[in-house]
Amino acid sequence: MNDENVRRLLVEISYDGSEYSGWQLQPRSSTVQQVLQKTLTKLFAGHPITLQGSSRTDAGVHALGFSASFVTPPEPYISTDQLLNALNRLLPHAIRIHTIQPVPLEFNARYDAKGKAYTYVLNLGREETPFTARYSWLMRQSLDIENMQTAAQFLIGTHDFSSFVVNRKNIPNAIRTIFRVDFNQFDQFLCITFVGNGFLYKMIRCLMGLLEAVGRGSLDPSETGRILAAKNRMMAPKTAPPHGLFLMKVFYNDITMKQFNLKQLPFLM
Amino acid sequence: MNDENVRRLLVEISYDGSEYSGWQLQPRSSTVQQVLQKTLTKLFAGHPITLQGSSRTDAGVHALGFSASFVTPPEPYISTDQLLNALNRLLPHAIRIHTIQPVPLEFNARYDAKGKAYTYVLNLGREETPFTARYSWLMRQSLDIENMQTAAQFLIGTHDFSSFVVNRKNIPNAIRTIFRVDFNQFDQFLCITFVGNGFLYKMIRCLMGLLEAVGRGSLDPSETGRILAAKNRMMAPKTAPPHGLFLMKVFYNDITMKQFNLKQLPFLM
Repeated sequence: MNDENVRRLLVEISYDGSEYSGWQLQPRSSTVQQVLQKTLTKLFAGHPITLQGSSRTDAGVHALGFSASFVTPPEPYISTDQLLNALNRLLPHAIRIHTIQPVPLEFNARYDAKGKAYTYVLNLGREETPFTARYSWLMRQSLDIENMQTAAQFLIGTHDFSSFVVNRKNIPNAIRTIFRVDFNQFDQFLCITFVGNGFLYKMIRCLMGLLEAVGRGSLDPSETGRILAAKNRMMAPKTAPPHGLFLMKVFYNDITMKQFNLKQLPFLM
Repeated sequence: MNDENVRRLLVEISYDGSEYSGWQLQPRSSTVQQVLQKTLTKLFAGHPITLQGSSRTDAGVHALGFSASFVTPPEPYISTDQLLNALNRLLPHAIRIHTIQPVPLEFNARYDAKGKAYTYVLNLGREETPFTARYSWLMRQSLDIENMQTAAQFLIGTHDFSSFVVNRKNIPNAIRTIFRVDFNQFDQFLCITFVGNGFLYKMIRCLMGLLEAVGRGSLDPSETGRILAAKNRMMAPKTAPPHGLFLMKVFYNDITMKQFNLKQLPFLM
């Protein structure tokens, strides 16, 4: 037994959310945490591994840069390079490991995060293929993107997002800060990226429900402020479906957060 | 009973091959033909519907423009528009119907085809995500694309493709004509499109195995002619995996075939 071998490792993960019931362990369904813990436990000779995730993602939501950390058992010793290769060999293709790096033992993947970026993909192409259907929300009519951008401006800053959360009663407060909302278009896909210090349960999907209603013209962009102020989920439009949403990156320092920029469709990255 | 209602309809279909054991009906696995026939039979009030496909696609191969036809029962009468909407509502997202059009009763989706286009997607980006892994073949090293284009020139024309078919003994002859092999690059994805009058079992995947070996430098492009002339599968490199392959279009007239041109990654179309 060698205590120096006990390390905390931070893992950056991408996964196709269509295949799993979200990140978090659940009794009767397959989740990313479950599959990854099982594989890690196998690699560490049966020593049980528990992952600490940066966030929960719902069933159907995808991830390109989910972060999770765990403490290695004292033995067997496995280098980060060996571990990366072994994991990508053993895991299903729907889960890929991008990086593994040592972090301080007291590191907390959730509480040490400075912020997160999520991208939501809208398909403006009118027709759905089996491929795009998994990774975008199909729009049935044209959208007024300028109005959506106007509405998004109201969301930037520190607000009580009670109008944009599901199960508000389960959390102590709904105050969060959105730093940026970026709009990027690649061919027929409109990508809306939210960068903030943290997001509530289904918050991005609630915000996208609002932006979509504004885009369709069923809601005036100026209503956004009033809906925020109401602090009431009933006042805001419906929740957008999960399959257009990608957790892009969890930031552990402010510089990488400021530099984050979407250059390509998330599912091509 | 109204005989005028008996029509043959041609259906253009896209599907995500990862979800099915290919097109063709099979005893113990889920295939696209099976799912579609079951849905059509339900819509036509239980009258059994049999689909005649333009081709067989292997397990894992995707389609953007697969064609199949069937004869409607005399009743109930369902218009092509109604049928299109009902099918896309009832079918899983992994199967989408693009068009439905009446064709002569004697039309044969397989034998009336003038040609087909297939596109194979190579991922030159070195790293795989869960999304790209489903729809492309990841290259582990850089490719010499010019050499691949040189090799492709040897394949164009009418040849005996016995070196590029699996289960040669099951077919009377292996002579086919390839009209064009187009190379298109979109970001890190190299798309190679084959247009020909017909393709043998696993032929495109065998041809891609050759082009990949040439790209890696393990085979000289000039070897292509010699391998073709050998008419022996053992002489050619290994078969490429199915998940990079897309059946793009089945052509029933020469003009649409000549005009066919890849403008975007197949899984974004």
